[in-house]
Amino acid sequence: MIQYVRQHVSLSSSHYDAALNEARELRMLARNGIFDGPTSGFAPGLAQGNVVILPKEWANDFLVYCQKNPIACPLLAVSAPGETSIASLGENIDIRSDVPEYCVFRHGELVEHTSDIKNIGWDDMVAFVLGCSFSFEEALLRAGLSLRNVESQSNVSMYQTNLPTVPSRCFSGNMVVSMRPFRPAEAIRAIQITSRFPKSHGAPIHFGNPEDIGIKDIHAPDFGDQVVIKEGEIPVFWACGVTPQLSIANAKPPIAITHSPGKMLITDLTNEQLSVM
Amino acid sequence: MIQYVRQHVSLSSSHYDAALNEARELRMLARNGIFDGPTSGFAPGLAQGNVVILPKEWANDFLVYCQKNPIACPLLAVSAPGETSIASLGENIDIRSDVPEYCVFRHGELVEHTSDIKNIGWDDMVAFVLGCSFSFEEALLRAGLSLRNVESQSNVSMYQTNLPTVPSRCFSGNMVVSMRPFRPAEAIRAIQITSRFPKSHGAPIHFGNPEDIGIKDIHAPDFGDQVVIKEGEIPVFWACGVTPQLSIANAKPPIAITHSPGKMLITDLTNEQLSVM
Repeated sequence: MIQYVRQHVSLSSSHYDAALNEARELRMLARNGIFDGPTSGFAPGLAQGNVVILPKEWANDFLVYCQKNPIACPLLAVSAPGETSIASLGENIDIRSDVPEYCVFRHGELVEHTSDIKNIGWDDMVAFVLGCSFSFEEALLRAGLSLRNVESQSNVSMYQTNLPTVPSRCFSGNMVVSMRPFRPAEAIRAIQITSRFPKSHGAPIHFGNPEDIGIKDIHAPDFGDQVVIKEGEIPVFWACGVTPQLSIANAKPPIAITHSPGKMLITDLTNEQLSVM
Repeated sequence: MIQYVRQHVSLSSSHYDAALNEARELRMLARNGIFDGPTSGFAPGLAQGNVVILPKEWANDFLVYCQKNPIACPLLAVSAPGETSIASLGENIDIRSDVPEYCVFRHGELVEHTSDIKNIGWDDMVAFVLGCSFSFEEALLRAGLSLRNVESQSNVSMYQTNLPTVPSRCFSGNMVVSMRPFRPAEAIRAIQITSRFPKSHGAPIHFGNPEDIGIKDIHAPDFGDQVVIKEGEIPVFWACGVTPQLSIANAKPPIAITHSPGKMLITDLTNEQLSVM
């Protein structure tokens, strides 16, 4: 029995070690300009995060925006102004270079995709890292559910809704949602599983009729790819990390930097560390 | 702070004491033939149970049936053959008299409603107590959700489905479900809450299109009352304690005794004691 337990622990911990090594290696490769691709599927079991960087004059209002809208904007970490590391999320992170690709916004307009933002003055910059749906998608897959966007190797479908977020000064806008189709019994299971991941948008906010939340055409997502909804399936909608990006477009700060969609910060934390129950 | 905690504990425990007194008093009133009514709303916070009584030659197959179908038949307790008390569910319970009204089945046919079954030879009888949906309904109400059947003071709508249970020798049949209408966001919350009550049928087994589970006409329940499904609401279906009753009708034992619908055994256990997480 002790032998079995030892083997089991050893197996888990070697998987974790492998993922952790991969996370740290990918951050280094991103830092050195060698890796600038999508991070989905890398460092399995480890949490990936949405990144938002703002000047400190704008940071407090955005922090309050996250606090008021925790389902769409689940905060994992905030840096001190001018700080470049985020020790609570991983060893030796440099938030200015360890994301494979960044989007630079000026006055709310996307002006540049870049793999390095070290040329931007950092003295008063504040970095936010928000949980993303990759964490709960992994849990859904482990529970034996199929994800259409994973099956079809496409991006998840995302939509603007008519559900207003709670504004914080300049930061405001409607909630953006991601959609995954399921049969009803699978949807019930998916609700149970994603409820365990409040730092990854948690349970869905709606299912069924898209018009209930202001989506006119389910076949025309506002972001991401269209995925097929099969006979007997219903669309299930989760709050999405594009929501804070829209609030930045609305707030129009002189400068804001985010990760490039799908190219996330890979942390040292496991998805299970971020789960409840 | 200590003062506050003390008051809080004292308040809870006086509520519990009042409910416990009521539970024990109602069992005594039922025993003495004074109370034979529905038990809904009595002894708030305490779990009520479905009762099934079978001769011991049939009891093992039924026990296995419950084990194979735990969502429809969540076992709270089983007595030893000939035993009249069920100590694990409450003080001084006499299962032959403490249920307000019983149904007596002979060869699968209902032959009698009676408030006392002490005239039935008890030497080889085995009593089963199964969890019922009252436990999760209370949790839904406490979470601020409205239950149409409670609002309209009617019985919940119940339907035969085409979902087969797993048979155990003679015991078999399709699952019976209860239906409660909710708006999608409320349904998501209801799924989270009822997941905490595996001994009370747990999470729903289906929502949406009734025909998916073989229900031809949602407006014509097979048991209970019709409840209105309002615009924007969808029907949500939970496994129901009528399922084991149907399995008894199919098995046709020479004698079987159940509680009369809605007139349950009130236990000394709190609903929260039966919950998980």
